[in-house]
Amino acid sequence: MKVSIQVRLKNGILDPQGKTVNNALHHLGFKNIQNVRIGKLIEFDIREADKKKASVIIEDACKKLLSNPVIEDFSYVLGED
Amino acid sequence: MKVSIQVRLKNGILDPQGKTVNNALHHLGFKNIQNVRIGKLIEFDIREADKKKASVIIEDACKKLLSNPVIEDFSYVLGED
Repeated sequence: MKVSIQVRLKNGILDPQGKTVNNALHHLGFKNIQNVRIGKLIEFDIREADKKKASVIIEDACKKLLSNPVIEDFSYVLGED
Repeated sequence: MKVSIQVRLKNGILDPQGKTVNNALHHLGFKNIQNVRIGKLIEFDIREADKKKASVIIEDACKKLLSNPVIEDFSYVLGED
């Protein structure tokens, strides 16, 4: 089963990388783009046909390794294989 | 309008970061996870009500700054404001 995880900085957490990209875009003339935030996209295959069981594993992996729960939130989508 | 851009390494491009995360997951006991690939998630607001015009701007920004077209592909979703 394909899994796509999106990890975002929580609201209110400063995002210097996003700020830098925001400035770069403005310098390139993209003045109508604002509030840039950069997150992570983590995709993998999971050998688990049961969606419920897969979800448990994914959330466990997110909490233990893939995200920093103090400053980040995650969401995920389970796809077809 | 909210924009969410996903930037992924093209198929066949080596992903050392993904490989490292893959190994780390295995060491933590997540043996049924494989083929980890890490991408970028770029989100921003765009002051452009017209979806077609917004798409042109977004694709331009992706090609000029947000992705490296040689090794990366991008896709995006336009959301409500």
